[in-house]
Amino acid sequence: MRARALVKDLSALPAGPVTVGGWVEKLRDQKRIQFIIVRDETGDVQVTYPRPVVDDQPVEDDALAEKVSTLTSGSFVWITGRLVHDERVKLGGLEIQLDDVEIVTMADPETPIADDTSIDKRMDWRFLDIRRPEMNLVFRIQSTIEHAWRQYWAENDFVEIHSPKLMASASESNAELFKLEYFETHAYLAQSPQFYKQMAMMSGLGKIFEIGPVFRADPSFTSRHATEFVSVDIEVSWIESHEDVMAIQEQLLHRAISAVKEKHGEEIQKHFGIEVKVPSIPFPRVPLLEAIEIIKERGHTVERGGDLDPEGERQIAAWAEEKYGHEFVFVTDYPIGVRPFYHMRHEDNPQLTKSYDLIWRGTEITTGAQREHRLDVLIEQVKQKGLEPEGLKTYLDFFKYGAPSHGGFGMGLLRVLMLLLHQPNIREVGFLFRGPNRLEP
Amino acid sequence: MRARALVKDLSALPAGPVTVGGWVEKLRDQKRIQFIIVRDETGDVQVTYPRPVVDDQPVEDDALAEKVSTLTSGSFVWITGRLVHDERVKLGGLEIQLDDVEIVTMADPETPIADDTSIDKRMDWRFLDIRRPEMNLVFRIQSTIEHAWRQYWAENDFVEIHSPKLMASASESNAELFKLEYFETHAYLAQSPQFYKQMAMMSGLGKIFEIGPVFRADPSFTSRHATEFVSVDIEVSWIESHEDVMAIQEQLLHRAISAVKEKHGEEIQKHFGIEVKVPSIPFPRVPLLEAIEIIKERGHTVERGGDLDPEGERQIAAWAEEKYGHEFVFVTDYPIGVRPFYHMRHEDNPQLTKSYDLIWRGTEITTGAQREHRLDVLIEQVKQKGLEPEGLKTYLDFFKYGAPSHGGFGMGLLRVLMLLLHQPNIREVGFLFRGPNRLEP
Repeated sequence: MRARALVKDLSALPAGPVTVGGWVEKLRDQKRIQFIIVRDETGDVQVTYPRPVVDDQPVEDDALAEKVSTLTSGSFVWITGRLVHDERVKLGGLEIQLDDVEIVTMADPETPIADDTSIDKRMDWRFLDIRRPEMNLVFRIQSTIEHAWRQYWAENDFVEIHSPKLMASASESNAELFKLEYFETHAYLAQSPQFYKQMAMMSGLGKIFEIGPVFRADPSFTSRHATEFVSVDIEVSWIESHEDVMAIQEQLLHRAISAVKEKHGEEIQKHFGIEVKVPSIPFPRVPLLEAIEIIKERGHTVERGGDLDPEGERQIAAWAEEKYGHEFVFVTDYPIGVRPFYHMRHEDNPQLTKSYDLIWRGTEITTGAQREHRLDVLIEQVKQKGLEPEGLKTYLDFFKYGAPSHGGFGMGLLRVLMLLLHQPNIREVGFLFRGPNRLEP
Repeated sequence: MRARALVKDLSALPAGPVTVGGWVEKLRDQKRIQFIIVRDETGDVQVTYPRPVVDDQPVEDDALAEKVSTLTSGSFVWITGRLVHDERVKLGGLEIQLDDVEIVTMADPETPIADDTSIDKRMDWRFLDIRRPEMNLVFRIQSTIEHAWRQYWAENDFVEIHSPKLMASASESNAELFKLEYFETHAYLAQSPQFYKQMAMMSGLGKIFEIGPVFRADPSFTSRHATEFVSVDIEVSWIESHEDVMAIQEQLLHRAISAVKEKHGEEIQKHFGIEVKVPSIPFPRVPLLEAIEIIKERGHTVERGGDLDPEGERQIAAWAEEKYGHEFVFVTDYPIGVRPFYHMRHEDNPQLTKSYDLIWRGTEITTGAQREHRLDVLIEQVKQKGLEPEGLKTYLDFFKYGAPSHGGFGMGLLRVLMLLLHQPNIREVGFLFRGPNRLEP
């Protein structure tokens, strides 16, 4: 591999010969001097080529100047030259004086998108969109978040699983299910790893995590839904209530946001104008029924017995911010009517589940719960939901040969990123969006 | 969460009160003393209950003894008692003298599988199968491998991506493609992240990795194929040849196997009877055409111009073992006929690609290559393969606006695990197998 200096490292290098690889961000092709702004995955640098002069006039047939003139925006190049530290240069106080440019590939000059292009068109050309430094940063932040979580899991003896995405039947509900031809039969795409992460508990794995894709045939077009998204899942045995799950989740978020602040805080300030705020632990908690009363007092009525609507989520978040100065709030103890059959119910109030949603600045990012692990109780709950135990045989079989108490959560990776960076839409922070009208690129 | 001692930590604890959570592995219900072998995710421990005696006879109606008698194999229990270190106890030199047992859930006594059950039946009840300590270990080893790789990637500024698994068209070939209904149209499941990881290079992300599922509608029933499997992928910009990719891959394998040996070497010796062997770097390399000659000299003929067949892979691995004492061998420079259109060709021999397979103890675990990044050359190669550039428009568009040189590999996670542990079949080391006849559990 050719020795290549990253732009971010140039300021620490001594003046002298240097090679960078990147793409042409801008070319200013003046009569006496040529400026190329070259961008790589770490930043922008100014490359200058003063044309050779004879009798105070630029030489007409200078091969290098001619080569520079042909460069189109986006073209990938190797730049060799001499690094010069010069405080007068606005861009990082340094420049590269050009000795040679090697054109790796030339870009078509007709660029299909610009800074003001609509989001849908930008999604068509997402690879060009991601060349923007702030987008490039998004993916580095995502990497940092995931790595922080995995460090936590490794330190705490969690086992990584890869659960199958092809299933013989639904894992959540029969709605929003993608169906495919599978040899002589049909298969469905996993809507969540729910059943399998519970299976891992009955496998005796203790504590597991998975970061992987899930699929929902959801025809909605909101800013926070996609037909395919990355779900961050954990499941833990031997818990006593959903409180144990919440305690892990707040540690994970605290850890990830701390890591992001430390590693990317300055860049986030620069590109997004945001001060990353590390949340204190514990996060505030409020039972749903109380939350509904609080929201009512704030002038918004949530349907009794129901889940929070988007305005309710915003109101309870505003309340947590005012009362605790906290951006996060756990809403707990949802009524059984709005929770799936497998959520455990409170011993002292069987109308309420041992479950929670986590809301960050008004948007739900997680559902978590203790699961019912007693087969007889579970079958009863299946029937009460009007479901047929026979249709859930594979799942219910997991509980026949002993089960520990357990619980976990599922969290949308892109919702975390969207909220962290105050973005209006998960599409802005995802690699490639998938929605009802979008399967490409 | 209740304070819970892990079995692996008991030997370091002082004698005295202790609580463990696990499942009943065995019960020996004798007249004067009861023995329970309790297993958790870290090991087995002996729990003893000497029945209370009156006049040298066990008390008839002792509630605790009666509770112990009801325990079935597999039942999950909390054990409270007193830890005693006693060298005479074969199982780890310690036992827990029972004070109480709390039954979390009772197991159906009719266990559907035993140690000698066929693999297919064991897959039906995979969660019970995974309760075996050696299977439990497999998933801890997998976690260690993946974590070692991600550490390497984090240290070396790789960006993690999550590429979509739903696509509008095929990513590799039209064969082996799963098709699904997608709103008003159809979608296909990704056969590899190939196109998207290359897109990440044109996005300017520099170096990326992904560990995620891929799908092949492959009707074969071999020991190393599945319709859904976990692929480990990297793609790196600014390389000069496939040699740069190979150099990264051998570092990754060296690092993962070192981590496994350090963390699990003793357990692997105990459960699998294997001494983990850390491979030296660099791995041996041999061009395919030379390999075919070597294999021929060893008495096996591989079809000229073709890929290695399974016997050829075994022979070249045996040669590498004999000549270099190495379990790994890179076979390089495959002819264009057996490589996809996007592999780059050698400047000095356009019949050969800048590609490789990595073979470990006779089984291929990876295909890697430098990719063609020049659009005009790429279109020419598409046509030479008899494909229509129009059908690859989305992919070819990635190259229109500049592209760096780049390359990468895809590696089957379960093949690595299978070979590391000398297992005969990827099914033995996967969480849940998916094949033409299997979508459950």
